[in-house]
Amino acid sequence: MTDLLNALAIGVDIGGTNTKYGIVNHRGEILHQSEIKTETFATPELFVDGLHDAIKPLIDKLPSDSIVEGIGIGAPNGNPFRGTIEYAPNLRWKGVIRMCDLVTERFKLPSIINNDAKAAAIGEMTYGAARGMKDFIMITLGTGVGSGIVVNGHVVYGHDGFAGELGHTTIRPGGRKHWGTGRYGSLECYASATGIAITANEMLDENPNAGSLMRQYSREDINSRVVAECAWKGDKIANDVYQFTGQILGEALANFIMFSSPEAIILFGGVIKAGDLIMKPTKENMEKNLLPIYQNQVRLIFSELKEADAAILGASALVWELEKSNTTAAE
Amino acid sequence: MTDLLNALAIGVDIGGTNTKYGIVNHRGEILHQSEIKTETFATPELFVDGLHDAIKPLIDKLPSDSIVEGIGIGAPNGNPFRGTIEYAPNLRWKGVIRMCDLVTERFKLPSIINNDAKAAAIGEMTYGAARGMKDFIMITLGTGVGSGIVVNGHVVYGHDGFAGELGHTTIRPGGRKHWGTGRYGSLECYASATGIAITANEMLDENPNAGSLMRQYSREDINSRVVAECAWKGDKIANDVYQFTGQILGEALANFIMFSSPEAIILFGGVIKAGDLIMKPTKENMEKNLLPIYQNQVRLIFSELKEADAAILGASALVWELEKSNTTAAE
Repeated sequence: MTDLLNALAIGVDIGGTNTKYGIVNHRGEILHQSEIKTETFATPELFVDGLHDAIKPLIDKLPSDSIVEGIGIGAPNGNPFRGTIEYAPNLRWKGVIRMCDLVTERFKLPSIINNDAKAAAIGEMTYGAARGMKDFIMITLGTGVGSGIVVNGHVVYGHDGFAGELGHTTIRPGGRKHWGTGRYGSLECYASATGIAITANEMLDENPNAGSLMRQYSREDINSRVVAECAWKGDKIANDVYQFTGQILGEALANFIMFSSPEAIILFGGVIKAGDLIMKPTKENMEKNLLPIYQNQVRLIFSELKEADAAILGASALVWELEKSNTTAAE
Repeated sequence: MTDLLNALAIGVDIGGTNTKYGIVNHRGEILHQSEIKTETFATPELFVDGLHDAIKPLIDKLPSDSIVEGIGIGAPNGNPFRGTIEYAPNLRWKGVIRMCDLVTERFKLPSIINNDAKAAAIGEMTYGAARGMKDFIMITLGTGVGSGIVVNGHVVYGHDGFAGELGHTTIRPGGRKHWGTGRYGSLECYASATGIAITANEMLDENPNAGSLMRQYSREDINSRVVAECAWKGDKIANDVYQFTGQILGEALANFIMFSSPEAIILFGGVIKAGDLIMKPTKENMEKNLLPIYQNQVRLIFSELKEADAAILGASALVWELEKSNTTAAE
């Protein structure tokens, strides 16, 4: 048991602008955390040097009986099968990056990488609302819509590691055009923070004579937070925006349930700060679109992890997963 | 190795009208097969007696070194977790039926049950096009649309055994009303044989002045086979029917791929007799609706099992699955 108590994992969440990192114990307590600027490093090699410069002093200061088990990395387009980051549109490093090799060489520690949304799902299963669950879906509602699907206790990767792009499933055939993919009517077009801002501007344009608190803001300044604040003050159009968003999200979740029949769907990300504004219409429309056998069977809940910590916790949880699978393989 | 060569499984496929059964070896060869009329038995108990009367003489005639390992049952709403058939709308026996208990008591053999679509997926994995695959989706296009999803070598059941109702996912929000569920725009409304007949009649109604070979048939006589035969003779509307069906099916498959990223989707059931009429537009629209990372990565293929044998093979394959899981548990 001593090794469990002293075991620590390093969680690293690589984002386009910042990279957050922390040292985490088995209870999900973050002992140290900080961040470096991802975009200041011209190459992945320089970035890993910078990360080492930042983290090595923290490791050296740990109590002497601590055991750092490894480094878990969450990253956009992180591929756990190959230990790579592949063609991530939001990072300045292009092509295929052998991130795990670089990190392991520099730190002399095992490392494991995963897509950031899948890392979040593993974090939730390890430390959060999904503890003890074997079948759930985590939906991240941020600038985009990400997802991590867990079936029978295991993250679904598919044959190539690319499973779980639920934000790109079509929910309104021929609907709104996606700003990045050019495809029409995907869930991300509507249920992301970006989509909510577009919906708000569309509704304001369609009702030019209706008063709205949102008209105090320029088009560019309207975001999901502004819409929520106006809705809380009783603004009708702002409330309609969340009603519409929840309708589309609810319909999409009903489809996902008929795929994997999870015991829960966990919502995460900036958009959930809107609370009941997003939860109520989503839940209502999810239930309405389910076959009777699924109705009132699937819990729709918010993540229990603090958003500021979740990325680090999710990345660190990858290390315990690595440990588990090594143990299983050795049995 | 002798026990493998001599090992046999009984496959039983319970349908609303007929129940097919057969004795199958490890190579997927059906040694005997026949059927009884499901609907003539007033109770499940009488049905199991009838099944025993039919199968017992076949077992008695097997070579003396044969080992019948068990009985696999495919049935609508078959629940593998509980060994039951639950509220199957197409069977005359209502409520929850403890089918595995009844069969095991009567035959003195282990038994295992599964939903018919999931049994078909396991059959395909054991004997058919999915041999060696760990991630695939089987779509059954018959009177309805069924599905069996395999992730990492295991059928996806979800927390309650009800995963994989892909025929009921919404693909056209607010679209055609389903004759059974009353819900709007589900895949089954369009891609089933029933849906194809509805589309044909709709298209004939919408183009009252257009000639069509299908007008030789009454509304009730138009079915997916008639539409295919007319299309092969060059009938424009009949070809449009399959084009439209393939468009909707292709869009739906693209969504499924973004969920579980399978290496193949296998189509099965009466509708695939239309061959390229259904395959070509489905493939085209599936690819068109995928993100680039998935394009040209997923094989879309027809089942390799003869339709007449597939149900028995799928049910019999459940027995080998049972054997495998017992072996794993004993290790």
